[in-house]
Amino acid sequence: MTSLQRPSPIAASVDFEADGVQHGFLRLPYSRDDSAWGSVMIPITVVKGGDGPTALVTGGNHGDEYEGPVALFDLARTLKAEAVQGRVIIVPAMNYPAFRAGTRTSPIDRGNLNRSFPGRPDGTVTEKIADYFQRTLLPLADIVLDFHSGGRTLDFLPYAAAHELPNKEQEKRCFDAVAAFSAPYSMRMIEIDTVGMYDTAAEEMGKVFVTTELSGGGTSSAKTVGIAKRGVMNVLKHAGIVAGTLETRPTCWLDMPSGDCFRFAEDDGLVEVCTDLGDPVRAGDVIARIHPIGRTGQAPAVYRAALDGILAARHFPGLVKTGDCLAVVATVEERI
Amino acid sequence: MTSLQRPSPIAASVDFEADGVQHGFLRLPYSRDDSAWGSVMIPITVVKGGDGPTALVTGGNHGDEYEGPVALFDLARTLKAEAVQGRVIIVPAMNYPAFRAGTRTSPIDRGNLNRSFPGRPDGTVTEKIADYFQRTLLPLADIVLDFHSGGRTLDFLPYAAAHELPNKEQEKRCFDAVAAFSAPYSMRMIEIDTVGMYDTAAEEMGKVFVTTELSGGGTSSAKTVGIAKRGVMNVLKHAGIVAGTLETRPTCWLDMPSGDCFRFAEDDGLVEVCTDLGDPVRAGDVIARIHPIGRTGQAPAVYRAALDGILAARHFPGLVKTGDCLAVVATVEERI
Amino acid sequence: MTSLQRPSPIAASVDFEADGVQHGFLRLPYSRDDSAWGSVMIPITVVKGGDGPTALVTGGNHGDEYEGPVALFDLARTLKAEAVQGRVIIVPAMNYPAFRAGTRTSPIDRGNLNRSFPGRPDGTVTEKIADYFQRTLLPLADIVLDFHSGGRTLDFLPYAAAHELPNKEQEKRCFDAVAAFSAPYSMRMIEIDTVGMYDTAAEEMGKVFVTTELSGGGTSSAKTVGIAKRGVMNVLKHAGIVAGTLETRPTCWLDMPSGDCFRFAEDDGLVEVCTDLGDPVRAGDVIARIHPIGRTGQAPAVYRAALDGILAARHFPGLVKTGDCLAVVATVEERI
Amino acid sequence: MTSLQRPSPIAASVDFEADGVQHGFLRLPYSRDDSAWGSVMIPITVVKGGDGPTALVTGGNHGDEYEGPVALFDLARTLKAEAVQGRVIIVPAMNYPAFRAGTRTSPIDRGNLNRSFPGRPDGTVTEKIADYFQRTLLPLADIVLDFHSGGRTLDFLPYAAAHELPNKEQEKRCFDAVAAFSAPYSMRMIEIDTVGMYDTAAEEMGKVFVTTELSGGGTSSAKTVGIAKRGVMNVLKHAGIVAGTLETRPTCWLDMPSGDCFRFAEDDGLVEVCTDLGDPVRAGDVIARIHPIGRTGQAPAVYRAALDGILAARHFPGLVKTGDCLAVVATVEERI
Amino acid sequence: MTSLQRPSPIAASVDFEADGVQHGFLRLPYSRDDSAWGSVMIPITVVKGGDGPTALVTGGNHGDEYEGPVALFDLARTLKAEAVQGRVIIVPAMNYPAFRAGTRTSPIDRGNLNRSFPGRPDGTVTEKIADYFQRTLLPLADIVLDFHSGGRTLDFLPYAAAHELPNKEQEKRCFDAVAAFSAPYSMRMIEIDTVGMYDTAAEEMGKVFVTTELSGGGTSSAKTVGIAKRGVMNVLKHAGIVAGTLETRPTCWLDMPSGDCFRFAEDDGLVEVCTDLGDPVRAGDVIARIHPIGRTGQAPAVYRAALDGILAARHFPGLVKTGDCLAVVATVEERI
Amino acid sequence: MTSLQRPSPIAASVDFEADGVQHGFLRLPYSRDDSAWGSVMIPITVVKGGDGPTALVTGGNHGDEYEGPVALFDLARTLKAEAVQGRVIIVPAMNYPAFRAGTRTSPIDRGNLNRSFPGRPDGTVTEKIADYFQRTLLPLADIVLDFHSGGRTLDFLPYAAAHELPNKEQEKRCFDAVAAFSAPYSMRMIEIDTVGMYDTAAEEMGKVFVTTELSGGGTSSAKTVGIAKRGVMNVLKHAGIVAGTLETRPTCWLDMPSGDCFRFAEDDGLVEVCTDLGDPVRAGDVIARIHPIGRTGQAPAVYRAALDGILAARHFPGLVKTGDCLAVVATVEERI
Repeated sequence: MTSLQRPSPIAASVDFEADGVQHGFLRLPYSRDDSAWGSVMIPITVVKGGDGPTALVTGGNHGDEYEGPVALFDLARTLKAEAVQGRVIIVPAMNYPAFRAGTRTSPIDRGNLNRSFPGRPDGTVTEKIADYFQRTLLPLADIVLDFHSGGRTLDFLPYAAAHELPNKEQEKRCFDAVAAFSAPYSMRMIEIDTVGMYDTAAEEMGKVFVTTELSGGGTSSAKTVGIAKRGVMNVLKHAGIVAGTLETRPTCWLDMPSGDCFRFAEDDGLVEVCTDLGDPVRAGDVIARIHPIGRTGQAPAVYRAALDGILAARHFPGLVKTGDCLAVVATVEERI
Repeated sequence: MTSLQRPSPIAASVDFEADGVQHGFLRLPYSRDDSAWGSVMIPITVVKGGDGPTALVTGGNHGDEYEGPVALFDLARTLKAEAVQGRVIIVPAMNYPAFRAGTRTSPIDRGNLNRSFPGRPDGTVTEKIADYFQRTLLPLADIVLDFHSGGRTLDFLPYAAAHELPNKEQEKRCFDAVAAFSAPYSMRMIEIDTVGMYDTAAEEMGKVFVTTELSGGGTSSAKTVGIAKRGVMNVLKHAGIVAGTLETRPTCWLDMPSGDCFRFAEDDGLVEVCTDLGDPVRAGDVIARIHPIGRTGQAPAVYRAALDGILAARHFPGLVKTGDCLAVVATVEERI
Repeated sequence: MTSLQRPSPIAASVDFEADGVQHGFLRLPYSRDDSAWGSVMIPITVVKGGDGPTALVTGGNHGDEYEGPVALFDLARTLKAEAVQGRVIIVPAMNYPAFRAGTRTSPIDRGNLNRSFPGRPDGTVTEKIADYFQRTLLPLADIVLDFHSGGRTLDFLPYAAAHELPNKEQEKRCFDAVAAFSAPYSMRMIEIDTVGMYDTAAEEMGKVFVTTELSGGGTSSAKTVGIAKRGVMNVLKHAGIVAGTLETRPTCWLDMPSGDCFRFAEDDGLVEVCTDLGDPVRAGDVIARIHPIGRTGQAPAVYRAALDGILAARHFPGLVKTGDCLAVVATVEERI
Repeated sequence: MTSLQRPSPIAASVDFEADGVQHGFLRLPYSRDDSAWGSVMIPITVVKGGDGPTALVTGGNHGDEYEGPVALFDLARTLKAEAVQGRVIIVPAMNYPAFRAGTRTSPIDRGNLNRSFPGRPDGTVTEKIADYFQRTLLPLADIVLDFHSGGRTLDFLPYAAAHELPNKEQEKRCFDAVAAFSAPYSMRMIEIDTVGMYDTAAEEMGKVFVTTELSGGGTSSAKTVGIAKRGVMNVLKHAGIVAGTLETRPTCWLDMPSGDCFRFAEDDGLVEVCTDLGDPVRAGDVIARIHPIGRTGQAPAVYRAALDGILAARHFPGLVKTGDCLAVVATVEERI
Repeated sequence: MTSLQRPSPIAASVDFEADGVQHGFLRLPYSRDDSAWGSVMIPITVVKGGDGPTALVTGGNHGDEYEGPVALFDLARTLKAEAVQGRVIIVPAMNYPAFRAGTRTSPIDRGNLNRSFPGRPDGTVTEKIADYFQRTLLPLADIVLDFHSGGRTLDFLPYAAAHELPNKEQEKRCFDAVAAFSAPYSMRMIEIDTVGMYDTAAEEMGKVFVTTELSGGGTSSAKTVGIAKRGVMNVLKHAGIVAGTLETRPTCWLDMPSGDCFRFAEDDGLVEVCTDLGDPVRAGDVIARIHPIGRTGQAPAVYRAALDGILAARHFPGLVKTGDCLAVVATVEERI
Repeated sequence: MTSLQRPSPIAASVDFEADGVQHGFLRLPYSRDDSAWGSVMIPITVVKGGDGPTALVTGGNHGDEYEGPVALFDLARTLKAEAVQGRVIIVPAMNYPAFRAGTRTSPIDRGNLNRSFPGRPDGTVTEKIADYFQRTLLPLADIVLDFHSGGRTLDFLPYAAAHELPNKEQEKRCFDAVAAFSAPYSMRMIEIDTVGMYDTAAEEMGKVFVTTELSGGGTSSAKTVGIAKRGVMNVLKHAGIVAGTLETRPTCWLDMPSGDCFRFAEDDGLVEVCTDLGDPVRAGDVIARIHPIGRTGQAPAVYRAALDGILAARHFPGLVKTGDCLAVVATVEERI
């Protein structure tokens, strides 16, 4: 029996086929020094109301990103079965051990869930979670919305996003859903390396897939949570699962056309951000300086933009290490 | 010989009486497992240009607050002796071990420098630093500017501040310097507990003392660094040490009239901030909710404002623990 | 102002003078890297019903001892004001940070609360807790019951205990309360070193003080929790605070007459306990052996009893280190 | 060359074919930061006395379970070659790094040895140990006795056990050996998931395999060590390796008929065990309560038995986390 | 797509085909809790001067070995393109995370780079580094010089070395390069286990491969750095890449003929070295004693040489653990 | 009762007044999470043979210095009472927790024992040890020999040393004992800061006090252990406690005349030692260079000698941090 023929060790306490609202757990056995017969218990809510499409909505793929979990714990508590035509599967904190720890990766195995797909039923805890989404939850879904933000170490302009895909019809359905989300910014993404991503797993199954970056720093605000709450309802309405008209907002379409968008630090030190998120930049503008911290009187290293655009993302903490992504400049395609 | 009769173990490599610009170190011997004869080397710059008052300007009193260090590493590198009438002593990172670690307190002894005054020459590393400021640097100063921000776990409206003091003439000189700083907000503070504070140490010596809170989250931005850079130059000009006119900006005067300003969490969980910094609030308004994270479907705990005002500070990380300060509401005194 | 003239930084959210049942917190400000304005929040319940004596009942003085916390969280939830004539102050987990961590000492400062009295208002977190009991709670009490067990590393026969005291009248009142508690065993204790103990603090104020050891190992059982629940109600009845007759049980009075009771390990290794708790032993009996674990085929070190009696306490974990207390033999005074 | 064609890196200092008593090591090279050319040295004893079957007796498969190691360090030291007809291979501490650390899993790689079979010669340290048992020691054996207990986090009624097996003749030989062991309880086990178990590895080779659970909590007692010592001698006699009659005791045969035996916690908190090990329970009985520890006055969560039987296992530590196994109810088949 | 068909995630900022001196980085993306979009940046220098062979010279394969990094940071800074006929690729610290931490293995994944070949493009950080050398850098090279020393836990006589190889012509070229290196000692090595070694990876590609052990202890000296600097220049001259005559020194050829060379500790304790590096030893001589440290008055364990020769390597730290390599005796083949 | 009126909590299992050889412990109660009633057990040997002076000989004052412990565990085991006229008290590892951990300071409280005198009976574990030497052991002694070496982070020329003292007669007796020790080098020391030193404690009681530095790096060699063994016997003979003639060797007298002897690093990086221990240096000579490790191609920082002499001590590890002592140059007074 190969690994992938093994059943998942995860057991759901909810019945995905039952109508109504169910709050339960995905129980993943996890034997360890402090609990020989312990488990990871991932909260899940299923809201089903008759026939219709299934939306799988998730947060906490990275454990230190908060707009998704806030919007989804709230949605799980408030969404009524009567309001749903079809099914909404809500997992507010996919990488639940990471979410409880407030860290990007799992404290158990340092697994980055979004680089662990398709996962393994007999792998690490993080790989077991990935495998369960891959083989159990994603196949149930028609549309998938996965919330991200920058986490503790990055900060982003708030945007919803989809990827360019080989199947242009699928791609269009994805971007339609991005437009429905109605974030202040909307991004057209080309991933350089899609190995192990949840996004890719969903897209390869032909699902409509929408993701977001809704600020960052390991926090959230009333404003960004508002974007998330409105966005998820808009997507559910757009999918025909929840009735009602979309609550739309203007959006600015962005693009990351090449690797020149990214600036990586080649120095350790104290970062001085010279351009704030959303500020326009021109190629050659100073976007950041890194001050050496070993002594005073030293000249900072200077980092400049490589292309025209606006500052779409930045390193968050006050100190920076060689190799960190300092800043991302995106190009503006269209303001709607 | 009592402890306080002992000389400080810290040796400065700069001569505080010499004219010109000197970049050097405060060397504090620190024997430890990974360096038997090691030292902590705190960078310091002295810029002296003839006779005149002395300003002591400091950052990194808490190691995860960045507007001050960025502005002061920059100032130390760029301030010319010719531009100075008197003396400017610049210590961009007072609790240097904490600053290098990017943490509020010292990784060596977990010392909170701003609760360690007057310090001890034969105490912990943090207490030795406090003692050196108490007995060596503060006595040299006429005016003291100490930069703070919220650090990793708090976020503030950007303000300069001074304390109500028993000596009203001294208090007035302090608030005049706050006004000169010209931050977007200016705060009138009563400290509930002044034990161990650098502020108190300086004030008890009769110094003009200005402090700040310039946002937080363990980062800084172009905007808030700009406030810090302009503020320190304004204070040096106000003190007559640097020539030129102040670069003023409108400011809004705030007050924290009582303990009702503060809301503390009585629940662990996922925090949903319902009011953003600078938003007006009225007594009874929901300012935050805390969602239980053990399972879905649970009602959040609701936290409300106890008085009218604006949201002046908030808990920063996405998760919150019982006992954390959730939010601070300040009252608006005057907009100038 | 000396340290002990300072007010405690701890604020209680309950009113000790109000009738009725109040559940609240002792809030102790604790600034740290992960919460700049954080607090330790120690749960407390006050049940007051008119005039009468005050009992202060506590658990979690050491954080890994559980009969007390289980009985007291239960008592706090179920005791009605109507059932009380006087006042019951319940703190189920005195060293609350240790209790949350499941460790004997505080994870914050490694403080052993029961060696930290009288504490200091400006000391460590553990010293601040001690100071609050010393200066605020103990003075309110007439009778004090403090639950202990062996914790993770020791196991005891279940007993209630009091100390021999210089004031024989006070001593008698204490032993009367021990008898009222009605544990399977009752112990007459002479402490070799009383420095820093809560017991001593209470006794020096003239209070009736009862303590316990109710098994150990970092767990509890239905049987030992039953002893604790019955014991606290018996003590409250004995004190006249709760009405009703005592639920008595036979008890066996023990004594620890000298340092010969204790056997300390002089070898590291795998411990083989040769006598179980409650077994009779005679001087010279083998009570434990320590097997070297570096290789097979080595003779174990043999440890023998130094006096006749019964095994009253033992080292709990399977491995032992040089210097650990291996076993305690108590003498049997009387079976009632 | 595939991984499994590689030779094991482990070298034994004993000769498995030599008569007499040999104490030696299994040396496993383990290069690491604190020893570039270091090794793990697993103690082993071989006692051989002419022709006859081979018993492989092991403890410390999990490093915090002590009845096996105590009985086997003792047996290794005392068993004479003259007393043996055949061969006894004794490894008192299989996962030796875990045993030295007193933890269930290896401190080197967090490997749970009993989930690591068949292992890999070029894998982690734990996988290398598994591979050595799989390819070198198990093939030498006719009968295999592997001692387990509950470890630090579980507590069990003392029982010997075997599994239901597809080969009923093999199964019978296993249960005959269980009966020979003569523990107070004897268990008929169906494992839900046998992936990676040493048990399965031995059974799939057609060996007679006996295992045990002999209490727990990370300790042992004179009573439970007595069960282990008597059991191993009984099994060696039963196998015809040691002469003499079995020292039998009454036993109670138990069964775990389904997943309903297990109760998992869905709440964090302070556990109140309401039924002790060996107590009879009926479906619907409260077997445990979990008290919230964030504040007083909250109702505990209540956990009930799902079937009639006796309490066979329980969570050991005083605190419990969501997902931990709270209790196991076994059904009583027969008392002999 | 199998793992090995994947491109390496590492990007070089230098152009291996460009003439001149380039200082740059190998950038390896490494997402983690403290830098979501972080990278490991491994310094690299390429010096190219027209056509000719390529030498790949490396240090820091183990992160706590210093002669190589000192010589190579120095060489990278000082070697001029004009002095080179061909190409020199210099990586002073291959396992750069380990080098920064001063540890043998990587602090990221505890990877021992020299046991990680051929590596994997989608494996751990250490495996990604190995893969980049395997598939990108080694194929560019004609001659490979990899500096080792004993690191923190071993100390060696200073020698250059090559392996006996199946291809005797290749072997001769390797030993010629060893002779050219001209260390005080030269070693003929047979590796018992070549799995995962960089050496083997290079040799299997037919490269001329030279390695060294140049003392140890986690330090370096003026003398041993001098050997390294002279050695690398000699090898470059020998290869015809740098012009000039070799700076030769006498060398003593050693051999490690069998496993008897190695003595492993079977005791924990305080090591007393009885023979120093370079001392002659005869079979049966006491080379070390291990004193038990639990108490005074115990006899030390005595370790003796198994063959005649000289002490070529020894355990470095003052304490020793069971399984550590205590000493290596090499045989003297020839003094030149 | 003030702290210093309290009795020491340490109990010795040896009788200092009994004739013969006794091996025992200093038992220091130390309650902690992993042993509620645990102790630190410091090995001690007393050898007494009639009347005569008392020598107190100690090692392990810092836990990573090994010549002393090796020589003293050896001496404790081999010194016969018959060979002694007077008394020898041997404590091979004063800071025993540090010695077991192989670290300079105590793993329990990070205490540097040689900066903890006079200690406190109710302080940290390290302070309790200091207090026991201060109030119990030092008063018993006439002559005190305390072995030091450089430990893990420093390396020294092997020397015995004494301090310049105000009492010149006492000073002479000390230097006579240094001469008797007969190390390759002998040092005349002026301590800049004597606060907390064991040396000072002994000297202030008027004792003859000798100390050493016998190489370093956290190891020892046959050569340096030989110096230690010969030295302690020479001192005991010199004191008239052991009979026989001194085994003398030539020595070179050194001096550290001023703070210019010391060179401290002002840069982090990879250290290149340019002068080895014992090499002559002249003022202005380069003694070390520090290479930046963030990238290749950067110039190293250069450190030069400030006076003529020989290199007497150096930083040991391959990496260096700002503030570490890089090197010590001593002046040569006399070669004997």
